[in-house]
Amino acid sequence: DLRAGVLRRVVEWESPAGQVVRVRSTRLVSLTQRSIMAIRYEVEAVHAPTRVVIQSELVTNEDLPTTSKDPRVAAALEAPLVPEYQHGSGNRALLVHQTKASQLRMSAAMDNEFVAPNGDFGSQLEVQQDWARASGGTALEPGQRFQLTKFVAYGWSSMRSLAALRDQVDGALSMVVRTGWDQLVSDQRATIDEFWQGADVTVEGDDTVQQAVRFGLFHTMQAALRAEQRAIPAKGLTGPGYDGHAFWDTESFVLPVLTATAPQAAADALKWRHSTLDLARERAEALTLHGAAFPWRTIRGQECSGYWPAGTAALHVNADIADAAIRYVDWTADHDFDRDIAMPLLVETARLWVAAGHHGDDGAFHLDGLTGPDEYSALADDNVYTNLMARRNLLGAAEVVGRWPREAARLDVAADEPAAWRTAAEAMAVPYDERRQVHQQSRNFTEHQVWDFAASAEANAYPLLLNAPYVDIYRKQVIKQADLILAMHWCGDQFTFDDKARAVAYYEPLTVRDSSLSACTQAVLAAETGHLELAHDYLAEAALMDLSDLEHNTRDGLHIASLAGSWIALVAGFGGMRDHGGQLSFRPQLPTAMTRLGFAIRWRGSTVQVAVTPDEVVYTLRDGDPVELRHGDETFTLAGEPVHRQTCRVEPITPTPQQPPGREPAVPRR
Amino acid sequence: DLRAGVLRRVVEWESPAGQVVRVRSTRLVSLTQRSIMAIRYEVEAVHAPTRVVIQSELVTNEDLPTTSKDPRVAAALEAPLVPEYQHGSGNRALLVHQTKASQLRMSAAMDNEFVAPNGDFGSQLEVQQDWARASGGTALEPGQRFQLTKFVAYGWSSMRSLAALRDQVDGALSMVVRTGWDQLVSDQRATIDEFWQGADVTVEGDDTVQQAVRFGLFHTMQAALRAEQRAIPAKGLTGPGYDGHAFWDTESFVLPVLTATAPQAAADALKWRHSTLDLARERAEALTLHGAAFPWRTIRGQECSGYWPAGTAALHVNADIADAAIRYVDWTADHDFDRDIAMPLLVETARLWVAAGHHGDDGAFHLDGLTGPDEYSALADDNVYTNLMARRNLLGAAEVVGRWPREAARLDVAADEPAAWRTAAEAMAVPYDERRQVHQQSRNFTEHQVWDFAASAEANAYPLLLNAPYVDIYRKQVIKQADLILAMHWCGDQFTFDDKARAVAYYEPLTVRDSSLSACTQAVLAAETGHLELAHDYLAEAALMDLSDLEHNTRDGLHIASLAGSWIALVAGFGGMRDHGGQLSFRPQLPTAMTRLGFAIRWRGSTVQVAVTPDEVVYTLRDGDPVELRHGDETFTLAGEPVHRQTCRVEPITPTPQQPPGREPAVPRR
Repeated sequence: DLRAGVLRRVVEWESPAGQVVRVRSTRLVSLTQRSIMAIRYEVEAVHAPTRVVIQSELVTNEDLPTTSKDPRVAAALEAPLVPEYQHGSGNRALLVHQTKASQLRMSAAMDNEFVAPNGDFGSQLEVQQDWARASGGTALEPGQRFQLTKFVAYGWSSMRSLAALRDQVDGALSMVVRTGWDQLVSDQRATIDEFWQGADVTVEGDDTVQQAVRFGLFHTMQAALRAEQRAIPAKGLTGPGYDGHAFWDTESFVLPVLTATAPQAAADALKWRHSTLDLARERAEALTLHGAAFPWRTIRGQECSGYWPAGTAALHVNADIADAAIRYVDWTADHDFDRDIAMPLLVETARLWVAAGHHGDDGAFHLDGLTGPDEYSALADDNVYTNLMARRNLLGAAEVVGRWPREAARLDVAADEPAAWRTAAEAMAVPYDERRQVHQQSRNFTEHQVWDFAASAEANAYPLLLNAPYVDIYRKQVIKQADLILAMHWCGDQFTFDDKARAVAYYEPLTVRDSSLSACTQAVLAAETGHLELAHDYLAEAALMDLSDLEHNTRDGLHIASLAGSWIALVAGFGGMRDHGGQLSFRPQLPTAMTRLGFAIRWRGSTVQVAVTPDEVVYTLRDGDPVELRHGDETFTLAGEPVHRQTCRVEPITPTPQQPPGREPAVPRR
Repeated sequence: DLRAGVLRRVVEWESPAGQVVRVRSTRLVSLTQRSIMAIRYEVEAVHAPTRVVIQSELVTNEDLPTTSKDPRVAAALEAPLVPEYQHGSGNRALLVHQTKASQLRMSAAMDNEFVAPNGDFGSQLEVQQDWARASGGTALEPGQRFQLTKFVAYGWSSMRSLAALRDQVDGALSMVVRTGWDQLVSDQRATIDEFWQGADVTVEGDDTVQQAVRFGLFHTMQAALRAEQRAIPAKGLTGPGYDGHAFWDTESFVLPVLTATAPQAAADALKWRHSTLDLARERAEALTLHGAAFPWRTIRGQECSGYWPAGTAALHVNADIADAAIRYVDWTADHDFDRDIAMPLLVETARLWVAAGHHGDDGAFHLDGLTGPDEYSALADDNVYTNLMARRNLLGAAEVVGRWPREAARLDVAADEPAAWRTAAEAMAVPYDERRQVHQQSRNFTEHQVWDFAASAEANAYPLLLNAPYVDIYRKQVIKQADLILAMHWCGDQFTFDDKARAVAYYEPLTVRDSSLSACTQAVLAAETGHLELAHDYLAEAALMDLSDLEHNTRDGLHIASLAGSWIALVAGFGGMRDHGGQLSFRPQLPTAMTRLGFAIRWRGSTVQVAVTPDEVVYTLRDGDPVELRHGDETFTLAGEPVHRQTCRVEPITPTPQQPPGREPAVPRR
């Protein structure tokens, strides 16, 4: 239930002996009480008198199923937690464990409330080192129900004592017991109501996408809303994939959505990055660079990637963080954040770029030997995405320092540093293939051998990362995920319409989308270049990544960035929304099947509602001060009255692009 | 003793109690009895009557000293061998052990013969699982000696039974006991005499280099002469460095020397490669390539490199093997080898190049994303060394197939394959920087940022591989070892004199020689471009690599390729010897300090002696049929009469090149 924020299940089960029970469960992870989850579980006798026992457990160090060789799946430890303390009393039990190597301490506690007809039930509790179990039993007449309400509290710490952690978790459990089930459920709904008010997207004409986009927004919200200056991992908290690590996709796909819909959550995520700045400074020093080098994959700030060509060398994560900070400030005008969080992030990452690059004899500023978003290329010169994002980073740093000169001095910003940042930014190399009249993903890229896509299709070799060696993949034209095309989204003002159209035509047949971080971006650029049906297909793929388990690994956890990306595909794709230069603009247009698209965004404290139909778009200020917007090439102020405009239908100048054989958008959607 | 092939030591030792003994030892690893080593050990009482006990042991699984973090040092296992069998009787003991994981079985046996004045000694034997000990004791009057002659036999097998291996080693021991010490020593000298007859180099005017080059040749010979279709490892059998693995330097630095001086040993080394062809075919398939891909580092044919950007991606090892096979055939005209060994090697590696490269729109054949000899660059496009060596490989394959059409059919050589090889070879890309008028080590190389050599010198950061991250090293202009310069040696006919002079001028200031595989090549090109004093310096560095422990790691084993390289530096450098296109040519010239250089080489079954003095060179046919040679630009036939010519002094067209600060040639030689 995406409105209530609970998961409900009903099942009727017939035992081998022919007895029938109906089981209803409702469960939630609370967004208001941060350490609490709860489940209400009801068993009903259907036809005949039935004896029922409900067992409620806390279990750790369970045997895990054998893991696969897929590197994206989490590494699994045997019995990773060492039991440290156990206690039980009444229907309540508490376990404390420690991790073996890092000595992190975690505690889990449960409280179980059984309700039986006439209060007639017996219960007992057993507590062992690795598990605790409360059991309740009763006899039901047909139509009678036996109910368990179970509250669970979790806590962990790398520093606090056993006693402190035990008491914290026990206290949280006591609080939720006092609050009670009904209040917990209604608080959950109230929190989520508030989110949907500024975030809901309506899609008419495609119910599947409608549902999937809401599913995606719900999970984006759920992964972020209570992260509170901790990382938002690639899988949120939905599964063990990628070992719980956070990557660049938090800043590049999740934060743009949160910035427009739940800005406080975006701020929190960036404050987490800011809190790891000292580790990033140490990392830059270890790399013999300057400033800060944020990790490619991490839980708390240290680099956790063991394969540097597609990890550390992907320095673009630093520009992605800087870009997210610039975007957040553009959207919120949050001056405290600008000064205290954005400026240090921007200054230290700008220093990194100056140290990592050099001015060549050709007068351009070059970033050599780095890895862009496309993980099927590595250690290339002048990756356009990296270079243009670094350019934004450098210019953003120069600007923020100009706004806060006194505080900049505390970061030891030398008098000549901003000028050096501007000089590098303005001279940034952007390789272009004159012969093919197309931008190069990286220097020389378009001159490399084209991958044998037909052979890969025939050999059923996708994803290539599991079936082909990097020594072959890296040196050929084969693209895992949008790279130049991603640059054309976030740095779209650096390209002409013709550049984009030709790039889409050139790169689509090379892009295999072995990453979930691609379809949404391809949707955005397909829409911008007038290929609306293709954009619709890509939108569906991004939105259904997990509901349809398109990559066959949803069991490892949800693809949070792809789910957030479905919002991007809709709003930036068919809404044509851009925020280049801190100016919010729209070029709405709809694909054939879509009869209406509605979405709300929060811009500088105001809520703007956009409603698009095939021929018309209506902008409405839902609350807050008047805002300046662009529609197409026209700037207007949105105040009390809704503003009506014609949609901005784009005529494509290239034929509908083809994908590699077998790599067409994955969803039969219409 | 480089003539006798034994190590002699004499030491006088005074005990804390003031007793003085003189110890003489002579030891050898036999070149005639392949599994035998022996030591004669004599203790003499010097001033006073002395009681002496000699303990002679076989020991395994000893505690090893803590190893360093240097990746070039061997990994160390604790107690790697599992005892399987022990036996002792008389003064003879035998141990059999097995390795834990690979189950290789090895056996060692010793026989001890004590000789005391008047035969008056007592001896005993003890045998345990991991050691055996024979002890002999006697009382000596001043001037009397107590002597031990110890023979040790080794054997190993991955297949034979315990009994078979035990008997083999025991048999070898019985044979050498029958042969006796004196015969073993004289056989050793006879074998080495024969080697020196065709290999000795005389250097007048530089006694240090004279000694060091002989030391180098001796160890090259010793590493190779009884390898007998096993790999010649980077350290020979002199130490645990690089885990006993063989690399490309066997073919590129050791085999050119052996081909010219001990051709049968070169043939054996290539037969070893040939014996691993099936594994190389499997590897090519795993890499989704065709033909054969030989391993970067190996003991018996499997790829043992865990870091592919500087391992598998260095595909040039395949061209190096092909080149060594072509060279061996050019020098020996060994038709059986050409047909049975060279052809399969050349055909399968040619197939690899065709699969690894592609014809670009520019009409050139490109090899993208590979790693050349310089390990401070990786995954670059069109590495000139790789491309030109691949070119030789492709042309060589086309030629050998033409010589043996019937046998080629058995390798399934299709009718159009040789034409495809020639087409690729003729179109091979060789990137050139028009602005700087110099060849590029790889495409774009000369446009990258230049390394901050001054900072590295100040920080004492050499070798960089232990002090700087690859993400920084790979993307800048900093060269570990000769790469383009190596191409200019082995593929010198593909460059003009001006090309070479400008390349030396450009690349010398970028080359830090953190590899021992560089100084000898730099010597060759420095000499060719007229920088004779610099060539002399590099020669000295290559020759003294281990005698002066220039890289501070001779304890891990000798740098066999650098030692062989000192011969190359002399003969190809000051002798100006080249074998381009199967034509043997010379351009001799000497540096100031050298008054005479003499060397012998074996060319097509004949032995040619070359004697160079400052103004004159004399070619003499020592044995065999007349041969055709080139001196400078003149071709002549060398038959009965010595041929006298003027030396070929080259005038440099560029100033003496400078090295990075602190990376000048390491040896104060004059």
